[in-house]
Amino acid sequence: MLTNLRARAAASARTVIDVADGVRIGDVELTVIAGPCSVEGPQMLLETARAVKGAGAVMLRGGAFKPRTSPYSFQGLGTEALELLVIARAATGLPVVTEVLDTRHVELVAAHADMLQIGARNMQNFALLAEVGCTRMPVLLKRGQSASVSELLFAAEHLMSRGNLNVVLCERGIRTFETATRNTLDVSAVPVLKAETHLPVIVDPSHAGGRAALVAPLALAAVAAGADGIIVEVHPDPAAAWSDGEQSLTLDGFEDLMRRLAPVARAVGRDAPWSTRSVAPARGAMPCSA
Amino acid sequence: MLTNLRARAAASARTVIDVADGVRIGDVELTVIAGPCSVEGPQMLLETARAVKGAGAVMLRGGAFKPRTSPYSFQGLGTEALELLVIARAATGLPVVTEVLDTRHVELVAAHADMLQIGARNMQNFALLAEVGCTRMPVLLKRGQSASVSELLFAAEHLMSRGNLNVVLCERGIRTFETATRNTLDVSAVPVLKAETHLPVIVDPSHAGGRAALVAPLALAAVAAGADGIIVEVHPDPAAAWSDGEQSLTLDGFEDLMRRLAPVARAVGRDAPWSTRSVAPARGAMPCSA
Amino acid sequence: MLTNLRARAAASARTVIDVADGVRIGDVELTVIAGPCSVEGPQMLLETARAVKGAGAVMLRGGAFKPRTSPYSFQGLGTEALELLVIARAATGLPVVTEVLDTRHVELVAAHADMLQIGARNMQNFALLAEVGCTRMPVLLKRGQSASVSELLFAAEHLMSRGNLNVVLCERGIRTFETATRNTLDVSAVPVLKAETHLPVIVDPSHAGGRAALVAPLALAAVAAGADGIIVEVHPDPAAAWSDGEQSLTLDGFEDLMRRLAPVARAVGRDAPWSTRSVAPARGAMPCSA
Amino acid sequence: MLTNLRARAAASARTVIDVADGVRIGDVELTVIAGPCSVEGPQMLLETARAVKGAGAVMLRGGAFKPRTSPYSFQGLGTEALELLVIARAATGLPVVTEVLDTRHVELVAAHADMLQIGARNMQNFALLAEVGCTRMPVLLKRGQSASVSELLFAAEHLMSRGNLNVVLCERGIRTFETATRNTLDVSAVPVLKAETHLPVIVDPSHAGGRAALVAPLALAAVAAGADGIIVEVHPDPAAAWSDGEQSLTLDGFEDLMRRLAPVARAVGRDAPWSTRSVAPARGAMPCSA
Repeated sequence: MLTNLRARAAASARTVIDVADGVRIGDVELTVIAGPCSVEGPQMLLETARAVKGAGAVMLRGGAFKPRTSPYSFQGLGTEALELLVIARAATGLPVVTEVLDTRHVELVAAHADMLQIGARNMQNFALLAEVGCTRMPVLLKRGQSASVSELLFAAEHLMSRGNLNVVLCERGIRTFETATRNTLDVSAVPVLKAETHLPVIVDPSHAGGRAALVAPLALAAVAAGADGIIVEVHPDPAAAWSDGEQSLTLDGFEDLMRRLAPVARAVGRDAPWSTRSVAPARGAMPCSA
Repeated sequence: MLTNLRARAAASARTVIDVADGVRIGDVELTVIAGPCSVEGPQMLLETARAVKGAGAVMLRGGAFKPRTSPYSFQGLGTEALELLVIARAATGLPVVTEVLDTRHVELVAAHADMLQIGARNMQNFALLAEVGCTRMPVLLKRGQSASVSELLFAAEHLMSRGNLNVVLCERGIRTFETATRNTLDVSAVPVLKAETHLPVIVDPSHAGGRAALVAPLALAAVAAGADGIIVEVHPDPAAAWSDGEQSLTLDGFEDLMRRLAPVARAVGRDAPWSTRSVAPARGAMPCSA
Repeated sequence: MLTNLRARAAASARTVIDVADGVRIGDVELTVIAGPCSVEGPQMLLETARAVKGAGAVMLRGGAFKPRTSPYSFQGLGTEALELLVIARAATGLPVVTEVLDTRHVELVAAHADMLQIGARNMQNFALLAEVGCTRMPVLLKRGQSASVSELLFAAEHLMSRGNLNVVLCERGIRTFETATRNTLDVSAVPVLKAETHLPVIVDPSHAGGRAALVAPLALAAVAAGADGIIVEVHPDPAAAWSDGEQSLTLDGFEDLMRRLAPVARAVGRDAPWSTRSVAPARGAMPCSA
Repeated sequence: MLTNLRARAAASARTVIDVADGVRIGDVELTVIAGPCSVEGPQMLLETARAVKGAGAVMLRGGAFKPRTSPYSFQGLGTEALELLVIARAATGLPVVTEVLDTRHVELVAAHADMLQIGARNMQNFALLAEVGCTRMPVLLKRGQSASVSELLFAAEHLMSRGNLNVVLCERGIRTFETATRNTLDVSAVPVLKAETHLPVIVDPSHAGGRAALVAPLALAAVAAGADGIIVEVHPDPAAAWSDGEQSLTLDGFEDLMRRLAPVARAVGRDAPWSTRSVAPARGAMPCSA
């Protein structure tokens, strides 16, 4: 049934998505995207952006329009946040990904961001997929919390059938009976997707686990399973975060994650350029000499 | 946490939603909504509308904009379908409910329909909820396939916090491990919701079971559990339906359902005015005299 | 795949299981089994047995060996409870069903009970199924909390392939993401099983909902969907129960349930002999005259 | 609630289970257990045992008593298989783990094996847990397919409260809505369990993924997430296997897995003594000198 999908064609070849400024998702280099759940103001955004860049992130995430279960929760700073993201990009050189929630905002968000995020709750918002599919912007398509792998590929097809082939898939945990974690990271989806599609696949360990202490082990697991990158929530002061504080890493926590991630990335044949420790490539013949 | 929600306030009192032309959802009379999955043309729509009215339905359903897993499936006739629904209403007197998928279509759909449907896939499309919440149109809010009861009430709150209090909740099956049915009807959600909220609760047995043979037993179960109504897919020729044929009742099948539904409705104290069979009311002392 | 199973053969014919003393499960008369979760002592057991019999139950349930998540919870009175069940049967005439947990106890439990229960946690305890299959005792086989319909039928086949054809299936709720109820009653399993097998199907609304307030609506839904009976937990003082108090009905609560159940049973063509209210049969031609 | 469990006490300290012949699970050295799903005969068992030992496995798995969904599937060679496992141990020096299904077989299996396996379907077979808890044999306790982390710890407590403290926990995939894999590996359970208990945690990537192609990525993910070991199904000729052939690795496939596993193990600070490739330790400052 899935054989004729654009996401399937030539699954043996790998597609690399060229986001901006040299950031290429799906290449041998592991892609790390980091930043706050929500953009809360200029200072926290800049501080986070600089810190995550220093630790090795190559893209900045940050929510401007926030989908929230309750209408009384913080809904994001909207356009103001978009402008702050532009400033942070100018200051750090990090391309920016942010979520778009409404067909009427696609043009606005596209004018500010380098990559549009379709959130899990909107994975089957087909009007939004169609509108984003009509741009040529790189898209980060998150798997719905109860979407099957097949439905994720069909959602990608909604984008690709409109002409937008720049799709990156993101596993972020599925809903199961288990309540020990916010969601259940379906780490198997990584190799399944890598076999079923030529598109890059990244993982969001923050939403999957829902707790800061789980981010590192899940990120390592995702990379070991073959993910092309990770997207991580980081906040200068998680306890004071306006949203998702429980699952946000501190700046130090993110640096520690990056330190632990590099050897795992290399162990599965990935480049981890943020780390200068010399380690023999996982599949090379030569022992390390440093 | 949920205590301050508008959907919760005075849960002991029941809210009745006045749709149009005397159709009141949440009252003692059981509400039956029926019609085709998609509006496919004038003839099939009129034929279906007349038949379901004859059998006792008081509202007509029919998809104009269809959310479809695959972009290559039939996406609905759009505006043309809306106009056909208006014609069918004029011909039969049945108020019309149809789904709206896109914030930009809310005004258009509201101009044609009597009730707006938020589909399961869009239950957490908060931009759409906000836009629909800004109308005062009756809304049929379907539970997302992996939404908890709590999340459904919060979705209602997104509508109600904008001022639209005319919300009817709809259980339509949740996603579980079981593959013998399309979804798993969470019939418990009916009494749970009736205890948690003052809003009317109806059930969609067609999407829950996914097969015509399951529609009647699930509809009966829903009503026995306390549902205020059901919404059922009916098609003059299910085998030729452009969508959801497998779960659509034939016109005869719908009539048979209505015949079986009446005594169950009465057994739990509901009026079933389409049925003239005289049966003693379930909780009354007096035999019926009609 | 399932076509050759004994549980499938001649699914069009219905099998009636003759338990004892005229109790026949699967016949036109709805079967109501009731009693305490655990046998806690002679007095509470007798009091419950007499009350449920008075309200219309035709069999007594009561746990002697209890499967408990924690090893520090009450594990049942064991042999002593079996003897108390025998006394209660003698006093009331109600045949007894109780759970067997261990292959080494099958003979013992079979010597005291009229029907052996295989609990949800043991649905795929194949050693136990084999041992119970070697008796000819009626068996109440509960669906595992994450067992598919197909796996339930295969579990029945483990019993039937040993020669024990006296199998009654029991839907008791499955595990899903929803936490508003203890389990999610899969009411669709009733019509699905009725179509797939000739065996009787009953429903346990107590374990499904996990709360006393949900027992009646779920019992009514089960019967409306076609169940051949229900099995309900009842306790003279639920707040003081040693297990499952939260989901146990009081004696009055059970009587109320039976009063509400009768018209629903009749509405779907079942006999409800405990109720003397005269109501025309659901499929008869005659209006009621009372 | 869980705070007083023996599995919880001193969760900060790590328990190492001493199985036999120097095999210690939970130590710095990663433990790899491998072997056929079922013991099918002497030759295939010896061939597999020698091959997996050569590739670095330190324990042999092999089913003697098999829990099978259908009573018509191969149920294991029973006692004959136990004797073959003893022979294979003598020939290779590999300690043996095999499943016990029936309380009446505990003594028999314990007399032949070095470690008793409680399978996923029996995780809440409390009679079996009690009987195995009365031995002092090392136990491999598999998580039930819909058991929560909390229930798994309580199952361990059933063993430990009887005095058997030699418990190793095993995550092997849970049942979810996703059908692309046999089960969904809950890789998050590894760090969650490591935080909640002092017991060793291993992962079964074979049953989790259900396909040979997924075994390696899932094994790598498990180890990256912190698992103390893996248990893998291997068969000389998977296509001809009497059970679980689809998910069994060939002998070459297992060797390849071990080659890929070593650098990941080292990247997270584990010893992988089967691999002689010199790689700097993941967290050390010193380059390797070998």
